[in-house]
Amino acid sequence: MATTVEPFDTVDLIRVKRGSGELSTAQIDWLIDAYTRGYVADEQMSALTMAIFLNGMDRREIRDMTMAMIRSGETMDFTGLGKTTVDKHSTGGVGDKITLPLAPLVASFGVAVPQLSGRGLGHTGGTLDKLESIPGWQASISNDRMREIMADSGAVVCAAGSGLAPADGKLYALRDITGTVEAIPLIASSIMSKKIAEGTAALVLDVKFGSGAFIQDIDQSRLLARTMVDLGTDAGVATTALLTDMNVPLGLTIGNALEVRESVETLAGGGPADIRELTVALAREMLASAGLPDADVEAALDDGRAMDAWKRMIRAQGGDPDAALPTARETHVVTAERSGFVTEQHALPFGIAAWRLGAGRARKQDPVQAAAGIELHAKPGDSVVEGQPLFTLHTDEPDRFARALEAVDGGWAIGDEAPAARRIVAERIS
Amino acid sequence: MATTVEPFDTVDLIRVKRGSGELSTAQIDWLIDAYTRGYVADEQMSALTMAIFLNGMDRREIRDMTMAMIRSGETMDFTGLGKTTVDKHSTGGVGDKITLPLAPLVASFGVAVPQLSGRGLGHTGGTLDKLESIPGWQASISNDRMREIMADSGAVVCAAGSGLAPADGKLYALRDITGTVEAIPLIASSIMSKKIAEGTAALVLDVKFGSGAFIQDIDQSRLLARTMVDLGTDAGVATTALLTDMNVPLGLTIGNALEVRESVETLAGGGPADIRELTVALAREMLASAGLPDADVEAALDDGRAMDAWKRMIRAQGGDPDAALPTARETHVVTAERSGFVTEQHALPFGIAAWRLGAGRARKQDPVQAAAGIELHAKPGDSVVEGQPLFTLHTDEPDRFARALEAVDGGWAIGDEAPAARRIVAERIS
Repeated sequence: MATTVEPFDTVDLIRVKRGSGELSTAQIDWLIDAYTRGYVADEQMSALTMAIFLNGMDRREIRDMTMAMIRSGETMDFTGLGKTTVDKHSTGGVGDKITLPLAPLVASFGVAVPQLSGRGLGHTGGTLDKLESIPGWQASISNDRMREIMADSGAVVCAAGSGLAPADGKLYALRDITGTVEAIPLIASSIMSKKIAEGTAALVLDVKFGSGAFIQDIDQSRLLARTMVDLGTDAGVATTALLTDMNVPLGLTIGNALEVRESVETLAGGGPADIRELTVALAREMLASAGLPDADVEAALDDGRAMDAWKRMIRAQGGDPDAALPTARETHVVTAERSGFVTEQHALPFGIAAWRLGAGRARKQDPVQAAAGIELHAKPGDSVVEGQPLFTLHTDEPDRFARALEAVDGGWAIGDEAPAARRIVAERIS
Repeated sequence: MATTVEPFDTVDLIRVKRGSGELSTAQIDWLIDAYTRGYVADEQMSALTMAIFLNGMDRREIRDMTMAMIRSGETMDFTGLGKTTVDKHSTGGVGDKITLPLAPLVASFGVAVPQLSGRGLGHTGGTLDKLESIPGWQASISNDRMREIMADSGAVVCAAGSGLAPADGKLYALRDITGTVEAIPLIASSIMSKKIAEGTAALVLDVKFGSGAFIQDIDQSRLLARTMVDLGTDAGVATTALLTDMNVPLGLTIGNALEVRESVETLAGGGPADIRELTVALAREMLASAGLPDADVEAALDDGRAMDAWKRMIRAQGGDPDAALPTARETHVVTAERSGFVTEQHALPFGIAAWRLGAGRARKQDPVQAAAGIELHAKPGDSVVEGQPLFTLHTDEPDRFARALEAVDGGWAIGDEAPAARRIVAERIS
């Protein structure tokens, strides 16, 4: 029997990181390759990722890890498209439908937006789940079709094929069950390996902090943003990041079809103030990266250009942008218990409640309800009168109301004084 | 399909330890049970053990873990034997054949010694491998036969059945491939779960430090000893420990049959000074634990009582104590490169060289050579003349000499001044 002599011993590599040492480029290259082909076992990789979680990785190690994950699969190339490509990635939040108005808005300026997206898991929603509530719309398209749409209508939101950075897919599934999801070097290399492999020329990151975010602490979010901006820059992708507030749900809707409706309102020049604010801020970043720093983004929302791009984008993937969106069979209204100002509205309990209503999933293979979710009738700073509707729960299965109400209990407050106005974009990192 | 609702989520438990928190008794009980029945996956357990490695466990957690591992299997009970039982455990070293003279020496005072032992792995030898070089001797005996021999001749050295603490067996195999072997809470609970399950009334630990030991650093060895003594005491086993020096090979032989020969010399009242010193020190500890603090241990070595007990012990397990021991087909002598005093003789390189000659194994399933090993002709402090034999390598396969010589290269030194005399027993912990 022929055996291949491996250049490294897995346990030696674990010991290096266990002792806060540095892994060499050759060691990291080998590790990711050996893990992809199954020579390094899952239980070894999970011990190593816990050591990375607790002892960290430096900039060079993170870059090596990211590059090794990219080399584990195929890469895409949009250089012959005749258009600049700019992508955006959000670390995810509650009511975060920004990709929906943003991608067509940016595309309306002649820039291509290759937006490879994911599905929701837990209390954070997924862009593909949202768009799938539009009758006929298909998330899965071939790479050739993706290129065609980008050349034509400009914006594509689609499922990332399993061919990009397969090592990351395998590693992410492992981290999910072994308590090592929140490690900054691993989050950064996971996100950036797919974005770099996708071949975008520029990338804008929306890194969230606050109770509804993946990482709550702003300092940790800043470190993640810094790490990803450095990674992108090192790989030749023009990368910037906005640190944005995710303490309060974004906009007035949480849930798939409800969020599509709100996105369409925003594309029609309306929509909630915070959704418009963040869409505009990210569009300006993306267009500046594409060499259009002076683009009048607000005009494109107000004069219908962004809406036209949206309709082209939806139709290109089989969707009917004019079809009625699904609505839930049952609703339940929660009213204000007193008069005053809404002072608190926490993203996490509202996110969990929407998930429990059917908008999200607990396991990857679970289906979601297109129409389930929450509609907010007032936001922090709004004055309310006792008995007035505060928010409405939507679901097809009324036995879900009880557990959703339990989740959202204590998630808002009404007081005598209006709270200080909140800025969505806290910092810019480049 | 009926599903059992588990009281805890594995990822939550990993996060607790990841964040340096404490696991409750109920969480630890569940964890070990769920891991034994396969509900907690290997990759989850390995992430958790790395978190334990890096963030530690307190005395209560270690005790809970040990007790949970004991409950994962069967326990033994020697209370009806009419004799006090005392066991000894060594953390392992190079040339450590002490169990061979020690068990019959202690048994010669009417004390029962239930010595469940293991096989060697890597550069440290295993007691069972050594005894198996005696023609006819069998390591595997039933629990009933073990009890019978203890009642009769007193000392039994045999293989631990897989029924004792099976959770430990599963966890140890995992730690071995995931770089978490050296974690003190895990070493302590692994060793002590088997010793407590074995049902001994008293236990003496030989915890080694120095270059040939499992843990090199004396402070870490002391911490391990303290942790194990506390665990034994908490479980009602009278436990003490000696911290002993493992920088230099013990005695003048390394290798299975070679070490049996030296053990028999010691049982005949001779043998190297360090072997006799450590055997006597451990025997005094064990006999004091058994209520015989004034036993004249040296007399029993010198007057043949210990040798009689040895012969009974070997015969009880099918061995012929008078049969010739196997000898190696090939030998290679290394001579002194100059005259002077042996100043250094490092346990680790000599241990590795003996392993490479065939005395040890790299994988559990590998066989060992009974006659392979190293015979030392001089120890630190001895004066030597240029050209005089320093040590002899033994093996059945002469192509092993080159790699053994490579391992031992630089492992000794000869100087002009005799080094300071070395004490084997550094500290006693109770």
